[in-house]
Amino acid sequence: MIGARRFLILAEGNFGPLSSKTANACIRYAASEVVAVLDSAHAGHTAHDVLGFGGNIPVVATFAEGMRAQPNALLIGIAPAGGQFPVEWRVIVCDALRAGLDLWSGLHTMLGDDAEFVALAAVSGATIRDLRRAPADLDVSYGRVRDISATVVLTVGSDCNIGKMTTQLQVQHAVRALGHRVAFAPTGQTGILIEGRGIAVDAVVADFIAGAAERLTIEASHDADIVLVEGQGSLIHPAYSGVTLGLMHGALPHAMVLCAQPSRTTIHRNPWVPIPPIGDIVHLYEHAMKYLRHSPIIAIALNTFDLSDGDAQAAIDRTINETGLPTTDPVRFNPSPIASAISSFHMARANV
Amino acid sequence: MIGARRFLILAEGNFGPLSSKTANACIRYAASEVVAVLDSAHAGHTAHDVLGFGGNIPVVATFAEGMRAQPNALLIGIAPAGGQFPVEWRVIVCDALRAGLDLWSGLHTMLGDDAEFVALAAVSGATIRDLRRAPADLDVSYGRVRDISATVVLTVGSDCNIGKMTTQLQVQHAVRALGHRVAFAPTGQTGILIEGRGIAVDAVVADFIAGAAERLTIEASHDADIVLVEGQGSLIHPAYSGVTLGLMHGALPHAMVLCAQPSRTTIHRNPWVPIPPIGDIVHLYEHAMKYLRHSPIIAIALNTFDLSDGDAQAAIDRTINETGLPTTDPVRFNPSPIASAISSFHMARANV
Repeated sequence: MIGARRFLILAEGNFGPLSSKTANACIRYAASEVVAVLDSAHAGHTAHDVLGFGGNIPVVATFAEGMRAQPNALLIGIAPAGGQFPVEWRVIVCDALRAGLDLWSGLHTMLGDDAEFVALAAVSGATIRDLRRAPADLDVSYGRVRDISATVVLTVGSDCNIGKMTTQLQVQHAVRALGHRVAFAPTGQTGILIEGRGIAVDAVVADFIAGAAERLTIEASHDADIVLVEGQGSLIHPAYSGVTLGLMHGALPHAMVLCAQPSRTTIHRNPWVPIPPIGDIVHLYEHAMKYLRHSPIIAIALNTFDLSDGDAQAAIDRTINETGLPTTDPVRFNPSPIASAISSFHMARANV
Repeated sequence: MIGARRFLILAEGNFGPLSSKTANACIRYAASEVVAVLDSAHAGHTAHDVLGFGGNIPVVATFAEGMRAQPNALLIGIAPAGGQFPVEWRVIVCDALRAGLDLWSGLHTMLGDDAEFVALAAVSGATIRDLRRAPADLDVSYGRVRDISATVVLTVGSDCNIGKMTTQLQVQHAVRALGHRVAFAPTGQTGILIEGRGIAVDAVVADFIAGAAERLTIEASHDADIVLVEGQGSLIHPAYSGVTLGLMHGALPHAMVLCAQPSRTTIHRNPWVPIPPIGDIVHLYEHAMKYLRHSPIIAIALNTFDLSDGDAQAAIDRTINETGLPTTDPVRFNPSPIASAISSFHMARANV
């Protein structure tokens, strides 16, 4: 949505399928805007070598080398737990600002509040864009989503970092192809980077999580019959479950799509929390919604990136057997089973 | 814990049993520190006239009248939805700061960031204390509460503003009288005002709700065998459920005490959300905890302030019949049924 960006992505020491979520989504959905990735550990390779997609975007070892690709912006490509700014990257960011590169960041630490960065940007004319900066005028939620006519579909997950944004991005085109007006409502820094709008609900004051979700859902509904809201975290994630439930109760989805990864057995960075069987997760989400709005899980998106083709298909078949729900990996395979479930649900609602 | 405070409480137009939560808790638990309440709608009455407790603390109509009671601090006595600062109170706050009164506030709006207030305080020597100001160094939660040996008991509720802080404050003395070392861990502005420590978990960045809860629970455990954590909101409150779940998953209670109000049929300020039967609420809370820690509801605290003695007792008996759990109104009656349940649970845990 925002043109003429030429990103150098900073992912030093962390470029990989699971460790550089922001970088990877930018490469998957805005590859034409990425000129190089900075990670000395993978220098000399391409994005495709490291991720399995992204074509021949080069991975470089140093900032100077990255500059040869003529970037006009530096994107902080990872979202570490807690969102703090790694001190060792300060030197690179300062070099980038001195060179006049705009700075894009989805960290909790607001780089636009850093006096040194602000001063360097002022001198070079660079712009600092903090994707997680919350609107100043948020309010609490009052269930205002009940007043819109669009069908709201939220992705939820067995864990964080499992495909809730990716599923919506993969599915939206297929739902649109079925003849619906569709809007994607981003709730995290990466979705906002790609879509050019949204609110990072994990960065707002805690009392306003649902209020922020309500607002972004309503705004996205203005030009859509189906709003696909990006989910966050998981109801069983010990750090992020509050954001998950607040987002659910603010967005008030009519239906949910559950994202899971068959090979994952415990919660991300919390091996003390086993992930329960998928039927239990379906029940947990529907139970957490039911006193505010009846909201069934209508499809399942599996993240099978680490499985063979045969194992991926077997995991999908097993999930269909266990849950009776349309299931696929919307990245690896055609997303149409999920898109059809959303379309059918919307049409059934519209006809009632 | 903090001595020599003489509060004039600002509750203009809102002093009442349900509308001035911060004022009421301060009057109930720190009455000796309150010299007057400012609310022109009830001027000429006493706190007892309006609340049914609080003795003859006078309610006054104007700031000038309040000053005759020789306060040394102005306390913002209500916590409006969203926590914003009502513009019409600015004049009174400015007068108080000019007069050298310290300013205590639990609003989301940080009064210590207001340029006019800061300038007036600098001239008069007054101090501005924002009770909801979050620590700057919060982190996400990793389940660290699993490492402490104390028994953690969290209050949860069918709704917000129903007695989760009050129950812990009423129960703590009774649990202590049974021979346990008890700590109260405040999570909201009013508890922090009373106890002199704590973190307002509804005011932290959303990703850090559980991290804040984890930290305050561990800190409170240093000198206690039983930690009574103040609950927030409700799992079915459309605005605050995220704070509720994040607090649960950060504090990782071994057991929970459910707070409910028999006469309340819909959620506070959200009449579109009916409150389900109490057995369903018990199940909802235990279900939301179970994948992180088995945590039963072990007692129920009913808020019967608006019922006759007979109706209150009938509500308690009915709840005991429906749930099989020890139940009382810990404000109206002796809190010992709840205290005994906590003590017995702790001793059973310690013996395993």
